[in-house]
Amino acid sequence: MLTTIGFDADDTLWQNESFFRLTQERFTNLLADHAAPDHLHDRLLAAERRNLDRYGFGVKGFTLSMIETAIEVTDGRVPATVIGEILAAGREMLAHPVNLLPHAREAVTALAAEYRVILITKGDLLDQERKVAQSGLGDLFQAVEIVSDKKPDVYRTIFARHGTGADQGMMVGNSLKSDVLPMISAGGWGVHVPHGLTWALESADPPQGERRFHTLESLSGLADLVGKVAASHYI
Amino acid sequence: MLTTIGFDADDTLWQNESFFRLTQERFTNLLADHAAPDHLHDRLLAAERRNLDRYGFGVKGFTLSMIETAIEVTDGRVPATVIGEILAAGREMLAHPVNLLPHAREAVTALAAEYRVILITKGDLLDQERKVAQSGLGDLFQAVEIVSDKKPDVYRTIFARHGTGADQGMMVGNSLKSDVLPMISAGGWGVHVPHGLTWALESADPPQGERRFHTLESLSGLADLVGKVAASHYI
Repeated sequence: MLTTIGFDADDTLWQNESFFRLTQERFTNLLADHAAPDHLHDRLLAAERRNLDRYGFGVKGFTLSMIETAIEVTDGRVPATVIGEILAAGREMLAHPVNLLPHAREAVTALAAEYRVILITKGDLLDQERKVAQSGLGDLFQAVEIVSDKKPDVYRTIFARHGTGADQGMMVGNSLKSDVLPMISAGGWGVHVPHGLTWALESADPPQGERRFHTLESLSGLADLVGKVAASHYI
Repeated sequence: MLTTIGFDADDTLWQNESFFRLTQERFTNLLADHAAPDHLHDRLLAAERRNLDRYGFGVKGFTLSMIETAIEVTDGRVPATVIGEILAAGREMLAHPVNLLPHAREAVTALAAEYRVILITKGDLLDQERKVAQSGLGDLFQAVEIVSDKKPDVYRTIFARHGTGADQGMMVGNSLKSDVLPMISAGGWGVHVPHGLTWALESADPPQGERRFHTLESLSGLADLVGKVAASHYI
């Protein structure tokens, strides 16, 4: 039985990675005299990976990692004005408008009529709350959970709190690593809706021979898939 | 009737502001050639206030505001190595050990035997989770809620979710502005346990003629106070 459907937010319901990419381009341009784009990208990714345990996910940590990388690749010679530009780029990310992805509103609306729908996202608390509010989708969800990471136990707790357990729950999102695999480990269904842009630290291989795993090209097919799962064809 | 007791975390159960003060001293020393301590402090506070809507509370936003202030007060001439020191100071804050305040463990333990006790804190999600885990107090709480801000509606939602409503709840904390006043506005009890150090942006005047407001010198008196409130002497 399926009672509860969880949606990821960034790059599932609205654009996110594209803003990170734009900021990274700006970062590359700012440091063009000091490092080649590919090298800079590798160093930034290394800093993000190194800092993940301390900073967690989100724009503030990304900004701090950009600043750290700028100092590193210039051997401490980057002008403070460039650091100021990086700070400004981070603040702009925190103010960017929310652009819903195609079919996001209709998919959530359709399912909210028949199921408990919840939103589960990671990132900076205040920034994620702002995006939920600006998306106009907040009222469709029975609950919004902003978490520091998406592990099986996190899904177990959330689907027990707001639904009837993870084994009667489905998670829909663009990240195999964060949305799909840990939800399947928790006993639920995992639906992958790929986004053209995915952050390198979110990459993972799809599960093999897993009956509770599905892939959709877009959210437009979600209501149909859920209907089939509920009719037990896919259990 | 009183059923549920919420505890603030930073500077109520464990030290926090003292780490911010130490980092701020280090920041002052790093910029000693560029700005007098008082002036620097004012500029930093202004940056923190200005950025609160974007960064929210916590160490990452504080670090970003320090960097912004360093650039500002030096008219963009601060060396990148100094910015690197500020980054390092921020990372150290995110790694500092948790020092419980006197009577914290015994107060929570005593009340957890008779009441639902929950922990309600604001700040960076991952950092607050880390501190809860390191405090060793996590298992005493029925729930841990990390929120972006502490407003009456936030308390109403949390005490409805984990208790029997804010009007049957009490909030215990060191901040009149965040822990006490909004909880009283939500219909509950507010117990102020002042900490010697309080961040300027948390200052507020105590409520006047409010029967549900209490002040304690330390958490050692909390179980007694709760007993009296429960016996209706203080309703």
